[in-house]
Amino acid sequence: MSNSIGTQFVVTSFGESHGRCVGVVIDGCPAGLPIGLDEIQAEVDRRKPQSSAGGTGRREEDRVEALSGIFNGRSTGAPICLLAWNKDADSSAYSEIISRPRPGHADYTAFLKYGKYNDFRGGGRFSGRITAGFVMAGAIAGKLLAQRGIAIIAHTVQIGDVKSDPHPSHITRRYIDKTPVRCADPAAAKKMMAAIQAVQKDADSIGGTVEALALNVPGGLGEPVFDTLEGELSKAFFAIPAARGVEFGAGFGAAAMRGSQHNDLFSVKNKKIVTLTNHAGGISGGLSNGMPIIARVAFKPTASIGKSQQTVNLKTGKKVDLAVKGRHDSCIVPRAVPVVEAMMSLVLCDFALRAGYIGRIIS
Amino acid sequence: MSNSIGTQFVVTSFGESHGRCVGVVIDGCPAGLPIGLDEIQAEVDRRKPQSSAGGTGRREEDRVEALSGIFNGRSTGAPICLLAWNKDADSSAYSEIISRPRPGHADYTAFLKYGKYNDFRGGGRFSGRITAGFVMAGAIAGKLLAQRGIAIIAHTVQIGDVKSDPHPSHITRRYIDKTPVRCADPAAAKKMMAAIQAVQKDADSIGGTVEALALNVPGGLGEPVFDTLEGELSKAFFAIPAARGVEFGAGFGAAAMRGSQHNDLFSVKNKKIVTLTNHAGGISGGLSNGMPIIARVAFKPTASIGKSQQTVNLKTGKKVDLAVKGRHDSCIVPRAVPVVEAMMSLVLCDFALRAGYIGRIIS
Amino acid sequence: MSNSIGTQFVVTSFGESHGRCVGVVIDGCPAGLPIGLDEIQAEVDRRKPQSSAGGTGRREEDRVEALSGIFNGRSTGAPICLLAWNKDADSSAYSEIISRPRPGHADYTAFLKYGKYNDFRGGGRFSGRITAGFVMAGAIAGKLLAQRGIAIIAHTVQIGDVKSDPHPSHITRRYIDKTPVRCADPAAAKKMMAAIQAVQKDADSIGGTVEALALNVPGGLGEPVFDTLEGELSKAFFAIPAARGVEFGAGFGAAAMRGSQHNDLFSVKNKKIVTLTNHAGGISGGLSNGMPIIARVAFKPTASIGKSQQTVNLKTGKKVDLAVKGRHDSCIVPRAVPVVEAMMSLVLCDFALRAGYIGRIIS
Amino acid sequence: MSNSIGTQFVVTSFGESHGRCVGVVIDGCPAGLPIGLDEIQAEVDRRKPQSSAGGTGRREEDRVEALSGIFNGRSTGAPICLLAWNKDADSSAYSEIISRPRPGHADYTAFLKYGKYNDFRGGGRFSGRITAGFVMAGAIAGKLLAQRGIAIIAHTVQIGDVKSDPHPSHITRRYIDKTPVRCADPAAAKKMMAAIQAVQKDADSIGGTVEALALNVPGGLGEPVFDTLEGELSKAFFAIPAARGVEFGAGFGAAAMRGSQHNDLFSVKNKKIVTLTNHAGGISGGLSNGMPIIARVAFKPTASIGKSQQTVNLKTGKKVDLAVKGRHDSCIVPRAVPVVEAMMSLVLCDFALRAGYIGRIIS
Repeated sequence: MSNSIGTQFVVTSFGESHGRCVGVVIDGCPAGLPIGLDEIQAEVDRRKPQSSAGGTGRREEDRVEALSGIFNGRSTGAPICLLAWNKDADSSAYSEIISRPRPGHADYTAFLKYGKYNDFRGGGRFSGRITAGFVMAGAIAGKLLAQRGIAIIAHTVQIGDVKSDPHPSHITRRYIDKTPVRCADPAAAKKMMAAIQAVQKDADSIGGTVEALALNVPGGLGEPVFDTLEGELSKAFFAIPAARGVEFGAGFGAAAMRGSQHNDLFSVKNKKIVTLTNHAGGISGGLSNGMPIIARVAFKPTASIGKSQQTVNLKTGKKVDLAVKGRHDSCIVPRAVPVVEAMMSLVLCDFALRAGYIGRIIS
Repeated sequence: MSNSIGTQFVVTSFGESHGRCVGVVIDGCPAGLPIGLDEIQAEVDRRKPQSSAGGTGRREEDRVEALSGIFNGRSTGAPICLLAWNKDADSSAYSEIISRPRPGHADYTAFLKYGKYNDFRGGGRFSGRITAGFVMAGAIAGKLLAQRGIAIIAHTVQIGDVKSDPHPSHITRRYIDKTPVRCADPAAAKKMMAAIQAVQKDADSIGGTVEALALNVPGGLGEPVFDTLEGELSKAFFAIPAARGVEFGAGFGAAAMRGSQHNDLFSVKNKKIVTLTNHAGGISGGLSNGMPIIARVAFKPTASIGKSQQTVNLKTGKKVDLAVKGRHDSCIVPRAVPVVEAMMSLVLCDFALRAGYIGRIIS
Repeated sequence: MSNSIGTQFVVTSFGESHGRCVGVVIDGCPAGLPIGLDEIQAEVDRRKPQSSAGGTGRREEDRVEALSGIFNGRSTGAPICLLAWNKDADSSAYSEIISRPRPGHADYTAFLKYGKYNDFRGGGRFSGRITAGFVMAGAIAGKLLAQRGIAIIAHTVQIGDVKSDPHPSHITRRYIDKTPVRCADPAAAKKMMAAIQAVQKDADSIGGTVEALALNVPGGLGEPVFDTLEGELSKAFFAIPAARGVEFGAGFGAAAMRGSQHNDLFSVKNKKIVTLTNHAGGISGGLSNGMPIIARVAFKPTASIGKSQQTVNLKTGKKVDLAVKGRHDSCIVPRAVPVVEAMMSLVLCDFALRAGYIGRIIS
Repeated sequence: MSNSIGTQFVVTSFGESHGRCVGVVIDGCPAGLPIGLDEIQAEVDRRKPQSSAGGTGRREEDRVEALSGIFNGRSTGAPICLLAWNKDADSSAYSEIISRPRPGHADYTAFLKYGKYNDFRGGGRFSGRITAGFVMAGAIAGKLLAQRGIAIIAHTVQIGDVKSDPHPSHITRRYIDKTPVRCADPAAAKKMMAAIQAVQKDADSIGGTVEALALNVPGGLGEPVFDTLEGELSKAFFAIPAARGVEFGAGFGAAAMRGSQHNDLFSVKNKKIVTLTNHAGGISGGLSNGMPIIARVAFKPTASIGKSQQTVNLKTGKKVDLAVKGRHDSCIVPRAVPVVEAMMSLVLCDFALRAGYIGRIIS
């Protein structure tokens, strides 16, 4: 039980994969923000299975509706409830997972926690589908950040063992959305596509890594010692199903570095204090330092694969083989890109409100 | 501002590197737990500079005192205040960092957030010294977990480019504390020592990685969708100064794996459901699955190095060179081992209380 | 911004008086609780204008729908979203309050906080209508409490200067709902009805007091020193529009008492420790003592009256007279009775979960 | 377990009546506030037994020390730990309450919650002594409020059945501290003194009521719908041992009023919008309206009385008589005055920070 995140921009998630809807309540959006449902819809559409490579054949319509908090096209300061009604849900394929948990899925742990009452249909609360709600909330957070010039952008940097090496100027949404894998490096993107097709042929799946950047973040955001930028961002990223690792700046690579290499030297550029390198990923002491914030999130391969796998029948206690039916993503990484953006937007928006950098009325 | 962590086992940190003391208030410890200050002291002593390789020449006495919450040798249910008075603090070396922030340190970001009022002496709130308080709280959390048979253990798995490959049976505190780098692989430990000595000779520093395990954790701990085990653990780990990355199970390696490789197949062992591999690191859907929880935390090299580095004089706006004086760790990784253990203990204790797995009175 | 209440049983409110709906998300309901919408509907129906004396002529249909968290007729452990779509909303009467705030209403303070973006229609978020959502959540909390034998009951004890003096055995829902003012003392109820009719004739309104009792509460619930039973209950009661005072046990009367009168002496009854009197209202040191919990909430007279009143035109800064149109309650006290019950249920359910008195799976 | 209060100005209380100390950690104080220990000491001294009528013969020295968060005489933005070491504690009188709970005290409920591990000496955590820490924190909150011109003042308005009727211009600290009962009406103060002496002669105690005002509060503070001004203030007031009721403005008296009487009509004074009366006590819709905030807190008579009272021996289950030894206040109301001020300061400071009305750096 913990379906809310944030302290000043509080997002409460509800809904299940095959229930009536997936939605969020956003508490703390300042009054006066112009909100068009089409803008939110555009973000949610980027998360759809058919919008990128590796997605399933499912068609999710995900038409976003606003139930509260918006009046005359603007936020009122009241909680904003957004949701999308579920459609195209075929629960029949899931009946057997009640007693036979799928390897790599949360079926077994959900059973341990909620007993037989867990809504297992389509993964219920543990389905990637609930991230559609995260994206709705992220769209509003992103609009608030944009009011202060802060931009968030994410892109695929690895699928399988293919890594991207994009030109920095190509890390723009226009460029990223050109490739079906949301990679800013066209050559790598082709190889990533090939890697996905290879696992599809084998009824298998593959993992990858997403990088997220926050640009134009003012210095001093973050609330040490426990609500650090890294701490809150990583907590938010790990709410995305399949996330297995989070790092900032030089990240795990920093372990092999010397201080004289890793330390970012200070300098002055256009009368502003900058660092000559950005191994810190824009964060020092848990606080933003004014340089771009850089985070990477590693995703495991999709748990659902067509291959037969060993599990245990919870009723009999015997080992059984299970082939997961239904349509599944062979690689969720490209679809995770807008979700990573959303989580980063939520967290930075919360910190900007905590610091008073975004005010209580937008006018 | 956010010096508390936890929901049921709430730890509030206070104190500065060169202030009067470093301490914690622990709110939520069940009544009746036998608490000996010597046990807490033993944990705090493991964090001392002189207790492991790479530490400074500073002598920190860190005598732990209990100010509240303990009566007749047991917790009462009231908040427990623990602290260690500061000694041996030489603040003179820090006077120049007010205007000349040290590269890699939080001096500049602290200035951005708190202005000229920040207590910069010895890094103030951003010093690794405040983790002494985390270890005090972790010692109590660890005792509570031990009541239910849960054991937490951490060890160094990488320093520089030296990685350990310990025999699983050697991952015990007795074995780990045998080497000054807290590595369970004696051969790797020697190479790690050499790596540290090499950077010391160059007045430089080096990073590394710590792995933490939680054994005998019951299934179903964790509070999805936002308070996942990974999310809360990573948030806690990132409160340790110098942490740059956190991963679970296969972690970043999962990005290059296929689902058929990564999925942990279910099996039955001694009538208990287990998985044949543990790429999930004991966590599925944000919930513990009964297998060992495995996390790794990457640390950057110590920011303080003897070499001269470029910074900016905040008053004049001009570039200047700065050589950081004072005694510093050339590698904080061995000292981070007990801190990583403490943070894992705090988080798991909180989840065990949330789930009712630890009761409100220990008898 | 703070539309969530509770720590373990967290209720998030959304919706406006004349928006699309009024609803709640309930996070923390244990899995396995049988939930019938008809039971929730029955509670919500008690709050309807036409269900008691003093209500408006408005017909609110308030058909409760469940959007999430219920599967096969039982809670799943996931967040439960409940709402009622709004109908019969005539916003035209409210257009003039944008610039001319109604005396006694929140129009002016909402303007101060949210500026011109506040949804003023029908009072928006400040309308008593949002308490319909509180009652939905309270119905579920009440069911959880009932599982452990805890019963919550509220009744009108004062309207205007008429006070009730019910026979203790009459404080039952069956008896209370017999009178249109929800008073357990039939003689007083008649006088209360007369008092309401008198103010209605004058196009005026009248206040009153509601008493709430919690029976069979185990000893030791409450979380001192700040989350006392009194503190959390009063905070919840003050979320009901028009509440002006809260007291427990002897309450304000205790100010005039001596210790020898007020102290409840301990005794033994049926081998259980009881107190001979209950001036403490079942709470000592912020903790339940096993005796009935007794709270009283004073409500001001409805702010909306037919009489012309002086206000200020916010645009011109000039004094103007305003006659509030629309249909309004002349006395909201009888309708507040189920809301007071709901708030008490929410708070006690939260404390019962915090203490582990209600488990995480109901079976 | 809940020893923290506030969201932006978070106060964590620790310490026991007869433990080593009583203290607080304050998290969220903006950087740059000049803090003199003498100012805090002056507030704490007002709470001392010997500083007002009705107090005990105990001498509490209560010398306030600062352990962290202050540097060069100003707050740094880091958590501020303040405490007073305990002295003059004679625990011998309390040994018998382990098994024989005192009527009117929390001995029995603490036993229900914490079992035999509760620190019963002098009431432990349930003693009024812990409010010394509240006053330390309130002193800092009061200084922050004063920076923005907000003033908090409390005074005794009732002791026993004696009520005060002060001239509004006499409600100043100078005037209030002139009388040993902290009453702004000298004639009533004399009668209150007589009432206290009467109960002292009888080895009895007496209750009373404190009124608190907040002046110059800007409009729009408060966070509906759950974190209302009334809700948070009442929660804070009920953390004061012996508080039994809280009301705002007309309070319980509003129950007997008509809307046409109670509604505060808007007017214009010096180009500012005001209300002609202040039955709302400065709060509408949970938000401040710019008029003085007025709250009243009713206190029960001190539970400790010299008279013999019936209790139950928890070990034998038999009724026994108990005469509470030790030195006790015959009326705690005058000593509660600075505590009520402190709680109001804490809450308003928190709301002012939430609204951004007090900034993050004071310069």
